[in-house]
Amino acid sequence: MSSIAGLIEAINKLPSELHSKDFLLTWEQSQSELQQVLGIAETLKTMRAENIATRLFNSGLGISVFRDNSTRTRFSYASALNLLGLAQQDLDEGKSQIAHGETVRETANMISFCADAIGIRDDMYLGAGNAYMREVGEALDDGFAQGVLPQRPALINLQCDIDHPTQSMADLAWLKEHFGGLDKLKGKKIAMTWAYSPSYGKPLSVPQGIIGLMTRFGMDVTLAHPEGYDLIPDVLDVARNNASQSGGSFRQVSSMEEAFDGADIVYPKSWAPWQVMQTRTELLYAGNDQGLKELEKACLTQNAQHKNWHCTEEMMKRTKGGKALYMHCLPADITGVSCEAGEVEESVFERYRIATYKEASWKPYIIAAMILARKYARPGDVLAQLLREAQPRIK
Amino acid sequence: MSSIAGLIEAINKLPSELHSKDFLLTWEQSQSELQQVLGIAETLKTMRAENIATRLFNSGLGISVFRDNSTRTRFSYASALNLLGLAQQDLDEGKSQIAHGETVRETANMISFCADAIGIRDDMYLGAGNAYMREVGEALDDGFAQGVLPQRPALINLQCDIDHPTQSMADLAWLKEHFGGLDKLKGKKIAMTWAYSPSYGKPLSVPQGIIGLMTRFGMDVTLAHPEGYDLIPDVLDVARNNASQSGGSFRQVSSMEEAFDGADIVYPKSWAPWQVMQTRTELLYAGNDQGLKELEKACLTQNAQHKNWHCTEEMMKRTKGGKALYMHCLPADITGVSCEAGEVEESVFERYRIATYKEASWKPYIIAAMILARKYARPGDVLAQLLREAQPRIK
Amino acid sequence: MSSIAGLIEAINKLPSELHSKDFLLTWEQSQSELQQVLGIAETLKTMRAENIATRLFNSGLGISVFRDNSTRTRFSYASALNLLGLAQQDLDEGKSQIAHGETVRETANMISFCADAIGIRDDMYLGAGNAYMREVGEALDDGFAQGVLPQRPALINLQCDIDHPTQSMADLAWLKEHFGGLDKLKGKKIAMTWAYSPSYGKPLSVPQGIIGLMTRFGMDVTLAHPEGYDLIPDVLDVARNNASQSGGSFRQVSSMEEAFDGADIVYPKSWAPWQVMQTRTELLYAGNDQGLKELEKACLTQNAQHKNWHCTEEMMKRTKGGKALYMHCLPADITGVSCEAGEVEESVFERYRIATYKEASWKPYIIAAMILARKYARPGDVLAQLLREAQPRIK
Repeated sequence: MSSIAGLIEAINKLPSELHSKDFLLTWEQSQSELQQVLGIAETLKTMRAENIATRLFNSGLGISVFRDNSTRTRFSYASALNLLGLAQQDLDEGKSQIAHGETVRETANMISFCADAIGIRDDMYLGAGNAYMREVGEALDDGFAQGVLPQRPALINLQCDIDHPTQSMADLAWLKEHFGGLDKLKGKKIAMTWAYSPSYGKPLSVPQGIIGLMTRFGMDVTLAHPEGYDLIPDVLDVARNNASQSGGSFRQVSSMEEAFDGADIVYPKSWAPWQVMQTRTELLYAGNDQGLKELEKACLTQNAQHKNWHCTEEMMKRTKGGKALYMHCLPADITGVSCEAGEVEESVFERYRIATYKEASWKPYIIAAMILARKYARPGDVLAQLLREAQPRIK
Repeated sequence: MSSIAGLIEAINKLPSELHSKDFLLTWEQSQSELQQVLGIAETLKTMRAENIATRLFNSGLGISVFRDNSTRTRFSYASALNLLGLAQQDLDEGKSQIAHGETVRETANMISFCADAIGIRDDMYLGAGNAYMREVGEALDDGFAQGVLPQRPALINLQCDIDHPTQSMADLAWLKEHFGGLDKLKGKKIAMTWAYSPSYGKPLSVPQGIIGLMTRFGMDVTLAHPEGYDLIPDVLDVARNNASQSGGSFRQVSSMEEAFDGADIVYPKSWAPWQVMQTRTELLYAGNDQGLKELEKACLTQNAQHKNWHCTEEMMKRTKGGKALYMHCLPADITGVSCEAGEVEESVFERYRIATYKEASWKPYIIAAMILARKYARPGDVLAQLLREAQPRIK
Repeated sequence: MSSIAGLIEAINKLPSELHSKDFLLTWEQSQSELQQVLGIAETLKTMRAENIATRLFNSGLGISVFRDNSTRTRFSYASALNLLGLAQQDLDEGKSQIAHGETVRETANMISFCADAIGIRDDMYLGAGNAYMREVGEALDDGFAQGVLPQRPALINLQCDIDHPTQSMADLAWLKEHFGGLDKLKGKKIAMTWAYSPSYGKPLSVPQGIIGLMTRFGMDVTLAHPEGYDLIPDVLDVARNNASQSGGSFRQVSSMEEAFDGADIVYPKSWAPWQVMQTRTELLYAGNDQGLKELEKACLTQNAQHKNWHCTEEMMKRTKGGKALYMHCLPADITGVSCEAGEVEESVFERYRIATYKEASWKPYIIAAMILARKYARPGDVLAQLLREAQPRIK
């Protein structure tokens, strides 16, 4: 990693626009905003490795709202809060329904009197998760403007129906580390491909997040999936536009082989078709359990026709030099390990196991960087102060 | 708000009697004790607004025991602990039964080896909640006296069957802020009135807390409810005595209109009759689920006869200048918003929405003030120390 | 208690071998390692009593994994983390199955990016709990060696199928305090005996922990239980070997009376036979609910034949001078208090109630000492630094 002082210098050269807006979709952020988050994350990670405390908050709460089960994201968020000195407090609303109107406004204010960050995971309901976050954000703006809240908490999207920005930014930080810089990503070929899994209903946010972000850096992004496993059309438009602006490319193919051919990076992962998620959302709203069961059964049957979408050693041989970097947001469905037939062959996964752990290790720092960038007008200055004080994290 | 130094000076002029007793019912506290809590709360709130850290504890646990669901009180308590530097730890005992004897003594000690505060919400069982808190308090006294505990944790009543002191004190702090001082409350007319709600079994602690506290400050307190929706008789006696001593008044009426006429402040809120809560307690002890269902049905039918107890624009016109301050502990049952027919009309609530949020915003500081007053013989001195050190809360 | 400086001096005289190994079974630790943990625990407890902060970590997480219900151990662990400045984060995996292989490796790394301690309670599955901890430990070693983790978290055994080292070490600290030194334990007679309880399936880890540890200090250890209530044979071997090396003794008897005769210390407590725990483990793995119910019924019937294994006043008269120290890990099954017929008579328990609370009060400090000894190569030096700085815990 670079020297901390050098990292801070680079941060200070970027405009600090994140102080006044939430980071809810990577494609709403400017290039310099993305670079700022990456730079802050690397600074925090290096500081921790060098036993320099990064406790910016003497006290303060970080709220978490998980509308879906989560272990990895939960721990990453808790770690990010702890890095900054915030204490976690969980809001358990149940998963049954998405709240609206006064309930959202009131709850957002009631939990925020002493809150500096609110992280929300809400990926169950297509069309609702990201919208809910924006509604919370407006309630916080209003509460702050009206003098109800002494501070405007940073709002963090911990995964929604559209994007998974803490995951895709952690993936980007890992690629930057692995290849030695953002500029090294230009022209690299990445294959974001569907893969078979014996489970159903996995969110769209990871593949959408990847094609929406990696097209920003001049990469050649290939999205591959069987017929009918479409992503949200709007996000495909985003990826196309990004690619044309960044000098990269974006294409869709319907065979894993084609996507893997000559790839520098592969990201084989299961997801449910967009149309299925739409139907599922309607059934969830209607409380139609029987319909949900039938949908699951139909989807699993459909999935089972595509078991050949499998990241095998044979498939890996097609990649550049047979040595593409394998990525996954974890946990992967590993054939013969976590299931009978899954996304990836055991020997492939095993070879890249430590790499996927390192990929994941960026997430706490990315989340902390998003909070820091939202709370401070001059994030470089406050990091420089931490460096000057150099309090040891462990005595 | 006043200057911090001025607030501390005022605190120092009051005797510090709270150091040696728990704050379990407002009417067990002297006038100067109430003022001390208000003064400390305002000092802490002002310090936070001015980014001065209020972390008195380098480490220490704050325990929470919630025997009923709670979001707002849970977050207020967590915020209060965090303000002071304590980490929250939840004791989840289940709601089934109230423990007694050795179980209470043992548990109170086992959770308190490193605890500086214990907050309990226990409002389900009439005759048992406040008594349980006292039993815990005695166990803590004994554990401390015998050398088991290195400190006596502050015991905080987060709502019981009799009183809701953190709510009523937050309400009082809000009235003090809104009207510009405690002395300004003298002669103000407050209407604590029942209102229709489509739900059942709401605790008595809010209306009891309000009439038990607001009668202390020379206010003209009117309690209004339909026939049969009585509060605990002992608390009515408390309110009468308070009023006669403070130079205010306390009266009971059976029409919302009468209570609203000329009122400066209105607090329309649903509750279940005292006698119903008594029956419900017996059924809960007996585990009589069928009886509980029948009771609920009977009560909802009874409630439905009083839908005209509704805080409408028409009703508000009866208040002083048509502009009484509307108060609520939240969440309110808003007609056409959270239910078909409820406690308050949407346009009325909307006009006072931000006011109710500000009312609620006092709760974390009131709870922190109660802990601080219980732990320090000279609370003004320790606040003065915080002011001198002036550590920034956020770097 | 001794002076803090004196305690630290004694710690510095001991080799610091715990820095490079986990404390998973007391009999894997050398005599000086046990003494080091006792010494650090006493130092931390004395510092807290003298209001000296023991916050070694400016930030960092302590993870807890409870695969069985727990209140006392949960609070002790939370207290230990808080004493050192770590924030608790609970991993809730459910109790259903013991994970293996990649799931364990991955989870151990995913939760540990910012973790300094991981405490695990896993006592349900005979043959699996301690083994699971070792698997986690190896995953942490690997993650640290490969650069995934910036630190190797301390792994704490909060109770497994074999040992309960935080309990037995807390018990030992209490005996050291009560009798005035480890050397005073030489020749003391301790009776670890089975006692009747109306519940079933209590773990073996406490009696096994006691006979495995107390035989290290020249004590005369008697294990007493009805025919068929055997402990794991390997642990009996451990106790025998320990006794022969320490100059103490270990014997097994089949009557409570015989064990109590002339005892200095008695520890009457229920447990399930080893063979029953083995069968139960197999039924749990097979998900055989009917079999589990039948096993429970058979065991309760068997237990009921031994209600005379009861720590009565009559029984206590057999002990040395009628005044043996009564010990229990709590909660005890007290006849006429928590059950109709149980482990101990009310008057006996009441006389030693405060003593059992003091016994328990050591646990947070023992756990904190284990973490500290694992994280620091020179624990005495860091304690000396805390003493020099002498930050007040409470302002």
